[in-house]
Amino acid sequence: MSEALTTAPEGRPFDLPLVFKRHVFICAQQRPPMHPRGSCAASGAMPLIERLSAKIQALQDPELAVTVTGCLGFCQAGPVVVVYPEGIWYAPRTVEDIDEICVSHLCEGEPVERLIFVPKV
Amino acid sequence: MSEALTTAPEGRPFDLPLVFKRHVFICAQQRPPMHPRGSCAASGAMPLIERLSAKIQALQDPELAVTVTGCLGFCQAGPVVVVYPEGIWYAPRTVEDIDEICVSHLCEGEPVERLIFVPKV
Repeated sequence: MSEALTTAPEGRPFDLPLVFKRHVFICAQQRPPMHPRGSCAASGAMPLIERLSAKIQALQDPELAVTVTGCLGFCQAGPVVVVYPEGIWYAPRTVEDIDEICVSHLCEGEPVERLIFVPKV
Repeated sequence: MSEALTTAPEGRPFDLPLVFKRHVFICAQQRPPMHPRGSCAASGAMPLIERLSAKIQALQDPELAVTVTGCLGFCQAGPVVVVYPEGIWYAPRTVEDIDEICVSHLCEGEPVERLIFVPKV
């Protein structure tokens, strides 16, 4: 049983197993290079997506998952990543940033403060 | 400040604002109709995605978000949806199912038990 279950937000039926201890979402939205909104793919998301997918696969932890998404809504800050259930947003720039998020946050439960991004909605 | 912040899982820095009270992800993965894994799009996800996006837009609640994703990993059960931060998985079949998830879970914080799906990982 995942550690997160005991601290899950109100509204979660507690007899349900928590499927993933941490579920990371990474945006792959593509727009043309000069598009006014920008896009994560145009900002270099693809190598980060490849690295994140490879790292999660290599970890072989069934309580970790990665999902590639369409637009997460904060295109100017891209590439963007969000980790649930904590709801922590990151703006990684390099594959080393991805590695640090995997080791520190996903595996050890310590968010990577220097990479955190606070979206304005 | 969102209600979920006070009950967020351990590991979340508590001086960070919670960006979304609830963030719903819906799979749009497409595979050919006879593909052995199946896919959410081949199982009828597209009208559900349209309905979910329209409902969230109509609610005009900045604390709710919807993101369309690639494969969420449980293709045989598709179309699949997951709501964070609770980490509750649904297998809606109709637009009315989508409406019920929006009203009951996303707005009122009451998960829709009859539509919950427990993935086996």
